[in-house]
Amino acid sequence: MSAADPSTLIAKTAVIHPNVRLGRNVVVEDFCVIGCPARGEAPGATETVVGDGAVIRSHTVIYAGNRIGKNFQTGNKVNLRESNTIGDDVSIGTLSVVEHHVKIEDGVRVHSQVFIPEYTVLKKGAWVGPQAVFTNALYPNSPDAKRNLAGPVVEENARIGANATILPGVKVGKNSLVGAGSVVAKDVAADSVVAGNPAEFLKSIAELPYGRK
Amino acid sequence: MSAADPSTLIAKTAVIHPNVRLGRNVVVEDFCVIGCPARGEAPGATETVVGDGAVIRSHTVIYAGNRIGKNFQTGNKVNLRESNTIGDDVSIGTLSVVEHHVKIEDGVRVHSQVFIPEYTVLKKGAWVGPQAVFTNALYPNSPDAKRNLAGPVVEENARIGANATILPGVKVGKNSLVGAGSVVAKDVAADSVVAGNPAEFLKSIAELPYGRK
Amino acid sequence: MSAADPSTLIAKTAVIHPNVRLGRNVVVEDFCVIGCPARGEAPGATETVVGDGAVIRSHTVIYAGNRIGKNFQTGNKVNLRESNTIGDDVSIGTLSVVEHHVKIEDGVRVHSQVFIPEYTVLKKGAWVGPQAVFTNALYPNSPDAKRNLAGPVVEENARIGANATILPGVKVGKNSLVGAGSVVAKDVAADSVVAGNPAEFLKSIAELPYGRK
Repeated sequence: MSAADPSTLIAKTAVIHPNVRLGRNVVVEDFCVIGCPARGEAPGATETVVGDGAVIRSHTVIYAGNRIGKNFQTGNKVNLRESNTIGDDVSIGTLSVVEHHVKIEDGVRVHSQVFIPEYTVLKKGAWVGPQAVFTNALYPNSPDAKRNLAGPVVEENARIGANATILPGVKVGKNSLVGAGSVVAKDVAADSVVAGNPAEFLKSIAELPYGRK
Repeated sequence: MSAADPSTLIAKTAVIHPNVRLGRNVVVEDFCVIGCPARGEAPGATETVVGDGAVIRSHTVIYAGNRIGKNFQTGNKVNLRESNTIGDDVSIGTLSVVEHHVKIEDGVRVHSQVFIPEYTVLKKGAWVGPQAVFTNALYPNSPDAKRNLAGPVVEENARIGANATILPGVKVGKNSLVGAGSVVAKDVAADSVVAGNPAEFLKSIAELPYGRK
Repeated sequence: MSAADPSTLIAKTAVIHPNVRLGRNVVVEDFCVIGCPARGEAPGATETVVGDGAVIRSHTVIYAGNRIGKNFQTGNKVNLRESNTIGDDVSIGTLSVVEHHVKIEDGVRVHSQVFIPEYTVLKKGAWVGPQAVFTNALYPNSPDAKRNLAGPVVEENARIGANATILPGVKVGKNSLVGAGSVVAKDVAADSVVAGNPAEFLKSIAELPYGRK
């Protein structure tokens, strides 16, 4: 670890593996584990970068090879697998899981207990509600499943309601809103509201009283 | 912390912040954090009270300002944000999240991996199944979202099935039963069974073989 | 604890209760708790067995009385309650909860944030997607609920999609596939694909491009 800046505050119980670079004014709370090696990798083999101003709350686990921007916030007990790219001003809520090779752009907020698998893309300003679940395998655990993974893409400022399920490769358009509890099996057009199982178009965002960001 | 009663048993690895008042015969297991300050607050600024007979299981995090009654039980890895009011004989299951300003009355049981946002009210004897999700914002992340939060209300002895989604401000009537996996978008009358997405009335509780508590 | 084999690697912060038998080449990471007594039981009253080659990742809690085969893997922050029987080559994902008296056969993979209640049976090669929820009480918290518990049964090589809800006592047939976000209220025939709320038959597994394992 290099934590040259004395303003960085790391709890005594936190475990920081080798080759972790923390920015200025970073807080790492109790019982966190930062920079743990990916499965099969040696400790410190890949650099982990956390930008200035981060607050990593207690019991959070961040694997090696994440590159995280400024002002990152986690809730408690978050899990980030290896090799994700995370922009500035991102917040990942309590007990959420981000798998590996996920791209999260600036200003994204992921709420509590969310699941985000590999190859998901969350674009600028996207918002993901509690217990939303993204998927990337149409036929999980079949012979070609790993060769055919397709992460969902959430476009700028789109919002995913609580406990929604997003099917593999689905694109959720800019500014759109997916209703809570929906199962989204096909692409969602920009500026639209969808809901149901399977989710269908309900109305335009412009028709909502407080719809647009 | 004041733990004057020698019968109180706090694991050596537990972190107890200042201004936490634990009752008699309280157990706090390993890797718990109790009384941590809310975001922006100084440590110990707000008192945290946990009543007699509580068992706080390992890895649980309780923020400052909670007022919790007697015989409180948590599963492992529970998260309680700040300023909740919790009655006697309440149990919150493993990996559940209770946000802030939630009111939970006597005898409520919340199962595992549940999400309960701010301003939710769970009345006496309510039961909440695993992975149920409550919500409080009709148009999340819109300009007026924070001014229009409306927590759901679960009336006495009502039961929320596993993985159900409850929309903002919905009232679930006394003794009623919400089926597993339902998405509840409108109020549920007392003594009724609802299910589906969106949830619709199925039958009266009186028609169930073992329906009434 | 007996960890006679020096190849076994237990993190210094891990808590190992009495009467835990770990095999050769077992890894127990930081902040784990292994063999903690079931509610009302004395420490060490029941033996806990973890077979050769296990990797128990950080913050995982395993209660006493589990009997686990070879090459067991957990993600981070898994919870296993007491008295489960788990075969060889089983993997339980990050933040999943397995209650007590669950039977998990060889080669089962349970993904992240899953809930598995008592009396569930997962047969050889079954796959369970992230945030899937199993249930065992038709009328939870009713007077006869505890006498009428019925765990679901997932037959060999069946796959349960992400965020699906499986109702009490439901049998999911061999090789079948339950779509993501489904609510499964009746038995699923072998070699079939079901989806929806409530889940209905969609097609045969033979009709899928990569359906069969």
